[in-house]
Amino acid sequence: MLVRGKDYRSIWLGMRGKKPVVKMIDQTALPFSFRIFESRSWRKTASAIKEMRVRGAPAIGAAGGYALAQAAYAFRGNGVRKLMARIRKARKEIEKARPTAVDLSHALEFVEKVAGNGKEVEEVKKRSLAAAEAFADETVEACRSIGEYGNSLIPKKASILTHCNAGALATVDYGTALAPIRFAHYSGKRVFVYVDETRPRIQGALTSWELKNEGIEHRVIVDNARGHLMRKGKIDMVFVGADRIALNGDFANKIGTYEIAVLAKENKIPFYVCAPSSTFDLKCRRGSRIRIEERDEKEVLVIRGKRVYPKGTRALNPSFDITPAKYVTAFVTEKGVFRRR
Amino acid sequence: MLVRGKDYRSIWLGMRGKKPVVKMIDQTALPFSFRIFESRSWRKTASAIKEMRVRGAPAIGAAGGYALAQAAYAFRGNGVRKLMARIRKARKEIEKARPTAVDLSHALEFVEKVAGNGKEVEEVKKRSLAAAEAFADETVEACRSIGEYGNSLIPKKASILTHCNAGALATVDYGTALAPIRFAHYSGKRVFVYVDETRPRIQGALTSWELKNEGIEHRVIVDNARGHLMRKGKIDMVFVGADRIALNGDFANKIGTYEIAVLAKENKIPFYVCAPSSTFDLKCRRGSRIRIEERDEKEVLVIRGKRVYPKGTRALNPSFDITPAKYVTAFVTEKGVFRRR
Repeated sequence: MLVRGKDYRSIWLGMRGKKPVVKMIDQTALPFSFRIFESRSWRKTASAIKEMRVRGAPAIGAAGGYALAQAAYAFRGNGVRKLMARIRKARKEIEKARPTAVDLSHALEFVEKVAGNGKEVEEVKKRSLAAAEAFADETVEACRSIGEYGNSLIPKKASILTHCNAGALATVDYGTALAPIRFAHYSGKRVFVYVDETRPRIQGALTSWELKNEGIEHRVIVDNARGHLMRKGKIDMVFVGADRIALNGDFANKIGTYEIAVLAKENKIPFYVCAPSSTFDLKCRRGSRIRIEERDEKEVLVIRGKRVYPKGTRALNPSFDITPAKYVTAFVTEKGVFRRR
Repeated sequence: MLVRGKDYRSIWLGMRGKKPVVKMIDQTALPFSFRIFESRSWRKTASAIKEMRVRGAPAIGAAGGYALAQAAYAFRGNGVRKLMARIRKARKEIEKARPTAVDLSHALEFVEKVAGNGKEVEEVKKRSLAAAEAFADETVEACRSIGEYGNSLIPKKASILTHCNAGALATVDYGTALAPIRFAHYSGKRVFVYVDETRPRIQGALTSWELKNEGIEHRVIVDNARGHLMRKGKIDMVFVGADRIALNGDFANKIGTYEIAVLAKENKIPFYVCAPSSTFDLKCRRGSRIRIEERDEKEVLVIRGKRVYPKGTRALNPSFDITPAKYVTAFVTEKGVFRRR
């Protein structure tokens, strides 16, 4: 992704001597300041996930993989069995940081498995690191493919609604829902993006920041304005990401996705869900099985450190919703576009 | 309405000697502090309308009527004709404060007409004051009836979604959409209210303030969470207000109302529109004839004085939307409940 004209990933690995250091664009500082957050320990990386310095399911996956490799490198004892026990313990801790996204468990499972094939302590460590890097690279490649397949759905001129930030920040690079928009722009199409603000956390500001850096024309709107714009014929298509997709096609994504899906169907607007195939949870038969994370009511009551409601006001804050498969026009994955009918 | 256990209107009249003084709950200070704003001159009352110390179409109407009576009382000269000229001049000024509010013109027209039937200066003054009071009282009576009719639609136990602030603050007393909820509570029903925050101006904070003062159980939610809660069966019915209703039943209301209407229909949840019959615009045949006010993008970009998006970010800010009649289960007016089918 471009940031002030320079190419970046949202999260990457450096080495400090023999120790892996995780670096990430600090998303809690965005969009007002661009800061790189460094973590030299797996616990600090896990905290960064929890504090949402890194956010978005695939980016969290990459962060989790890196964290697990850091845990392996922190091991000072002897014996592969002890090291693997340490890795498994760390894995459980890291997994707790964000429960809804499936990518985190996938990444951790993958890194542990690859590392576990090592025969010596040093080999296990190296394997954990290689696996974590491979996971991040694969995510980038998947997003590139999603961008190319998704671009094939976009006409020469289109106005597109997207929700939350399913961009490069959320996915190491390119993004899921933003990847087709990026590739459309790169290929010279005239795209205009409606960025809904996505209360409570206002990730629309991150999407707007990415689009501004890429030079893609866009406007921010409040979440309430989406339906109005659809009804007025201002929106040609919708691209959203997904945090977890059940086998029947129901999927979990940022709160508000279901509202958009229903409005798109009512207004006969194509509704595309962009996600790497790893987002499909083969153990999950339908959306009702997906656990929805309830987050702190403060996210609703306080905006950028400023109280918007007086003390004593109570809020409810479900962070994700489930959109039934029937609202999805097609899933855009790195393996191609899968239409429901 | 109850405020700290005491009964209030959002706007009312006091006398200082022989001069009418307008008093109002200062809505620019809410919900953080409860202040009474006093105005001893018609110009100051007009400014209060402009600065949105008083807001909501019916409350603005009452304020305008009072302002015109103040203009009459400020007259020091001789002759009914001169006084009426003064009143007409003031009327034009007051009308400019919020040009889109239909109730404001209605109130001013009514007060001028009643005053104009006076034969002496003193009589004209008294008539203007009586007319302004009558207008406010009639608004209160209409809302009381809406409350009683609306209450008949609410079961013994119900959870209700409302949007924006269609409460006592917006309507002198009781409110439109909040009136049925108040009366249900007064009659011992167990009501629980989901208050959506209503970006960009977050009038949900005013609704929450009113409900807290009445002791009605409620939670604030972000606008994105409505669909999720409906799908989970958490919302039994929806009450919203209306700014203008066309002859065919299409209506304009705060941005986001259309989104709620579509979601309610999709989830088979009754969707009630509460408004005095004066909100029906007999000159307007259908919703597409209603002009939608675009407001300053700052309302989106800045929240309670705090920038939420960096400089250079652009926003679109349509303030109202049109909801087609087919989504309305029934209109609740002071004359009864009118079902569409």
